[in-house]
Amino acid sequence: MHALMERLYPICRSLTGNGVRQTLAILREYLPALRVHEVPSGTPALDWTVPAEWNIRDAWVKNAAGERVIDFRQHNLHILQYSTPVHGWFSRQELEDHLFSLPEQPHLIPYRTSYYQPNWGFCLSHQQRQQLQDEYYEVCIDSTLDEHGTLTYGELVLAGTSEEEVLLSCHCCHPSLANDNLSGLVVATFLARELARTPRRYTYRFVFVPGTIGSIVWLSRHQDTVGLIRHGLVLTLLGGAGHFTYKQSRRATAEVDRAMALVLRDAQVPHALRPWLPYGYDERQYCSPGFNLPVGCFSRTPFGEFAEYHTSADNLDFVAPEQLAESLSVLEALCLTLESNRTYRNLQPYGEPQLGRRGLYKGVGGGQEGADWQLALLWVLNLSDGQHSLLAIAEQAALPVPLLHRAAVALEGVGLLHAS
Amino acid sequence: MHALMERLYPICRSLTGNGVRQTLAILREYLPALRVHEVPSGTPALDWTVPAEWNIRDAWVKNAAGERVIDFRQHNLHILQYSTPVHGWFSRQELEDHLFSLPEQPHLIPYRTSYYQPNWGFCLSHQQRQQLQDEYYEVCIDSTLDEHGTLTYGELVLAGTSEEEVLLSCHCCHPSLANDNLSGLVVATFLARELARTPRRYTYRFVFVPGTIGSIVWLSRHQDTVGLIRHGLVLTLLGGAGHFTYKQSRRATAEVDRAMALVLRDAQVPHALRPWLPYGYDERQYCSPGFNLPVGCFSRTPFGEFAEYHTSADNLDFVAPEQLAESLSVLEALCLTLESNRTYRNLQPYGEPQLGRRGLYKGVGGGQEGADWQLALLWVLNLSDGQHSLLAIAEQAALPVPLLHRAAVALEGVGLLHAS
Amino acid sequence: MHALMERLYPICRSLTGNGVRQTLAILREYLPALRVHEVPSGTPALDWTVPAEWNIRDAWVKNAAGERVIDFRQHNLHILQYSTPVHGWFSRQELEDHLFSLPEQPHLIPYRTSYYQPNWGFCLSHQQRQQLQDEYYEVCIDSTLDEHGTLTYGELVLAGTSEEEVLLSCHCCHPSLANDNLSGLVVATFLARELARTPRRYTYRFVFVPGTIGSIVWLSRHQDTVGLIRHGLVLTLLGGAGHFTYKQSRRATAEVDRAMALVLRDAQVPHALRPWLPYGYDERQYCSPGFNLPVGCFSRTPFGEFAEYHTSADNLDFVAPEQLAESLSVLEALCLTLESNRTYRNLQPYGEPQLGRRGLYKGVGGGQEGADWQLALLWVLNLSDGQHSLLAIAEQAALPVPLLHRAAVALEGVGLLHAS
Repeated sequence: MHALMERLYPICRSLTGNGVRQTLAILREYLPALRVHEVPSGTPALDWTVPAEWNIRDAWVKNAAGERVIDFRQHNLHILQYSTPVHGWFSRQELEDHLFSLPEQPHLIPYRTSYYQPNWGFCLSHQQRQQLQDEYYEVCIDSTLDEHGTLTYGELVLAGTSEEEVLLSCHCCHPSLANDNLSGLVVATFLARELARTPRRYTYRFVFVPGTIGSIVWLSRHQDTVGLIRHGLVLTLLGGAGHFTYKQSRRATAEVDRAMALVLRDAQVPHALRPWLPYGYDERQYCSPGFNLPVGCFSRTPFGEFAEYHTSADNLDFVAPEQLAESLSVLEALCLTLESNRTYRNLQPYGEPQLGRRGLYKGVGGGQEGADWQLALLWVLNLSDGQHSLLAIAEQAALPVPLLHRAAVALEGVGLLHAS
Repeated sequence: MHALMERLYPICRSLTGNGVRQTLAILREYLPALRVHEVPSGTPALDWTVPAEWNIRDAWVKNAAGERVIDFRQHNLHILQYSTPVHGWFSRQELEDHLFSLPEQPHLIPYRTSYYQPNWGFCLSHQQRQQLQDEYYEVCIDSTLDEHGTLTYGELVLAGTSEEEVLLSCHCCHPSLANDNLSGLVVATFLARELARTPRRYTYRFVFVPGTIGSIVWLSRHQDTVGLIRHGLVLTLLGGAGHFTYKQSRRATAEVDRAMALVLRDAQVPHALRPWLPYGYDERQYCSPGFNLPVGCFSRTPFGEFAEYHTSADNLDFVAPEQLAESLSVLEALCLTLESNRTYRNLQPYGEPQLGRRGLYKGVGGGQEGADWQLALLWVLNLSDGQHSLLAIAEQAALPVPLLHRAAVALEGVGLLHAS
Repeated sequence: MHALMERLYPICRSLTGNGVRQTLAILREYLPALRVHEVPSGTPALDWTVPAEWNIRDAWVKNAAGERVIDFRQHNLHILQYSTPVHGWFSRQELEDHLFSLPEQPHLIPYRTSYYQPNWGFCLSHQQRQQLQDEYYEVCIDSTLDEHGTLTYGELVLAGTSEEEVLLSCHCCHPSLANDNLSGLVVATFLARELARTPRRYTYRFVFVPGTIGSIVWLSRHQDTVGLIRHGLVLTLLGGAGHFTYKQSRRATAEVDRAMALVLRDAQVPHALRPWLPYGYDERQYCSPGFNLPVGCFSRTPFGEFAEYHTSADNLDFVAPEQLAESLSVLEALCLTLESNRTYRNLQPYGEPQLGRRGLYKGVGGGQEGADWQLALLWVLNLSDGQHSLLAIAEQAALPVPLLHRAAVALEGVGLLHAS
């Protein structure tokens, strides 16, 4: 996954423009079924309108000696995203109003945007900024804002036996930032590739959209079918350090909320569950009260809570392959949990059925594994009254869903259980 | 408020009689609309009967030398409330049966009553009692118990735009005790004066009644209309030290219970919430199962939990002006919370509305205040589905109701919200 | 109770056979109404079949010198329960496969069974086992497995004024083990004798059954009437040390679950409440999903959590008379709680009734007892709205059910309360 990230990192993505297109083209190498959608600028989308398409070729600030003292070619973050084109000389005083730096992190370039208020500007390290001592500077931003452009997003559908859907959504609009959100893009890509290879009950829908406006556009085009979404996750910040964080959907007790809590519990990794908050990533849109979809947000350390957030330090070194792999494995476990969660009915509900003559008593050897297996059989039999899903049993029994699922399959195999 | 208390302190109030009348006459100077009601002795009231009216002119115990060794004129607490008239000589032995003192607080005069069992007696400090060494004493209690008298209570109604009511009830039957309950009377009086000056949604009903029988009489005369009471509080012990205590109504989760919890939370003062208990002040009557009104009890340190309780040490020095003022300010915040609590409906519930073009994005400058304002807008939008009141949002969002109310007003102003 | 246990201890009980019959015959000396039932081997019972009847006369292993090195006559635990008959010479190697010992508790003989897999074997201390150094041993097990035998269980019904039942169930299938479960048998016997002497609302049904198959047989013969069971307990491990443990029924909040929690709370003894688990004693059968009876399990330290469990150390010394007595007293308190739990209606629900003129105000002298009595009267009046049982009031008021019951009786006596 890190190799894919290395290819994506240098691309200057934004809300719209060629950076997103290049990114999706690379993802299609991994996911040939990925479809790329273009939505014209000016298209109404719920309460919003698709903005003009922004592209940038070059941008610099030159000193009196004609030297590039800020150079977009050096780092994508140097440009204020959606900067309007500009070319001319400015006094240092005038220029200062268009510079963004972090006095408390003087080595780092911040990431800033001005999507909906026309402006131009440069982001730079505070150290670099303090070296600007000339009286006048030549400024050039060679960007375009095309009212007749398009907004680009990607979508991949992996049909399952059911038309009920699992939605997985990542934002793809950040330039050279590795954890936020190349990590989400690559983990989602590898998860999709994995799911494509296996039989699926659910239909999985991956959407790669620019933040906020992208999910709003997507929702505006799927208003009739979002009701099929049974579970969903926004994926972001999956490559950095720090323990896993799951932010519950607005529903708080949706199946995905409960499943993620169990998966993290049973993975026995440090993690935190956080309540719904109408601030964050695109779950804000999916969980707006009109839609109220069961969509949570899965990340490691959340945005704003690590020092590298939205700076040039969120680079390829900040994300580690093993952290990406661990994130992917939790998501695979989640999908497995959702796939295997069913509600059964015990067909011999009066007294315990005699497991011994069906070969299920101590069927698996001694030790804790054997004891858990026996317990799993007993819990599934005891609670399978048509009211308790495997997930509910897992919560009450403090046993993992996969173990309970194996028990259910074994009991179904000897005719003691029936999926209801 | 302390000045008013100083005027009320010397009056000898009781369940009935001139002390209550004088007290209400003084309150009417502050609240001209206060109505005084007289209910004849013998009137049935629910399971009770209005008692005879008690008045007292003088009472003393003289020693053999004719000196007043216990003198009602020295302190109102010296007389057992509702003492029957008596005049004669008694042996010290006989007298002892009619004396009440506190061996463990030997300097203090206790407060004692015998409303419903005819008796006479004197309360005195244990030190004073120990000095009574004569063999015989002359006793005189110049009191009257008039079967043709009345019970007196006061009532003030501040009409609001709605006929739905907030009930605020204080007991006015204690003689020279400052915290219990002159503090309640004066805080209620100043709250009423404050509310009278401001526009009101609710109708506020203040009742100043003698304990138990007073609220029972009041309830018996308002059985048809108590259904209009949406919220209520018994106010007592508001001038002493110690942190605020809110005792929940029998309903436990009534709006007033939740509102008081939020107001105390957001006031960031030490406080305690206590569950319902069918013992205490007049909330016992308002929350009897037949009425089950949403009436809690608001105080500082509760009765029986401070050493000065029901003794001569509950005097004007025990209540501090700043403590009265703080109590008043919590009650003002409560009324504001109740007044502003509404349930709204987001009129753009699909996705987040674009706040920027409506001037609400970062509408208030940076810092925590700005962040809370943005959050308040998002929470109100996200939860205003017609099911969540501002109070429910305040609980979930951990934001103060007044801030959420300002956000709701702003959102209503730009057409995004509608009170449902 | 210990004396009864001393008589029962030497008997070699098993799932079936004469040991159970002898045991029940002794219990009938205490409970003449106890009925003994015999169910033929081969009878179908729910998902099970009644097994062959097993009896044993003698069993031994002799060394080359003809000395009994393992001797059933020395200890009932020496025989693997349900051992098939065998007689012959075996090499030490062959014998080893049929020996059971506890290397970590080398002095103790374990208790082992092989009810449903035909086998033979001996249990012995690990020390004893290590002394077996001969090459060949003569083995004799003089047992019978009779396909035309019967399974034996006992049942005692104490009719109450209501046909609603309290079920009390003990397993009677363990040989010389004192805590597990002679303690249950003797405590149940003495409880039954006690209940037989007092008026009863409920009908009490005591069943003494072999574990698992016994309760399954009993259930299979009472499928039509188990709906009358309102409350139930499995009684076991009541004579050892360690604090009380109550394992909730599958319903978790059944009346018996709540009553036992209150009884243990008010007994002010250390105790633990444990959630339902579909593993343990016969509650597994009573709480199978088809029946889902309100049956919990009451014990001291639970099975598997004390070192003596299922070994020869669970002997008469391990159970103490005072521990049996304490267990009995908790059960008596439970029955009293269940008997007295009713839901009342306050007939004067508007305001507090005047208790003084009915002789109930401060009717009991001062001190905490008097205060609790007053509180009990107030709580019963306040919550008796036809929705709160005494048990619910006890939970909310933190007062004992017996005190609340006395208050309810007193209030009913003066016409203020009516059982609804």
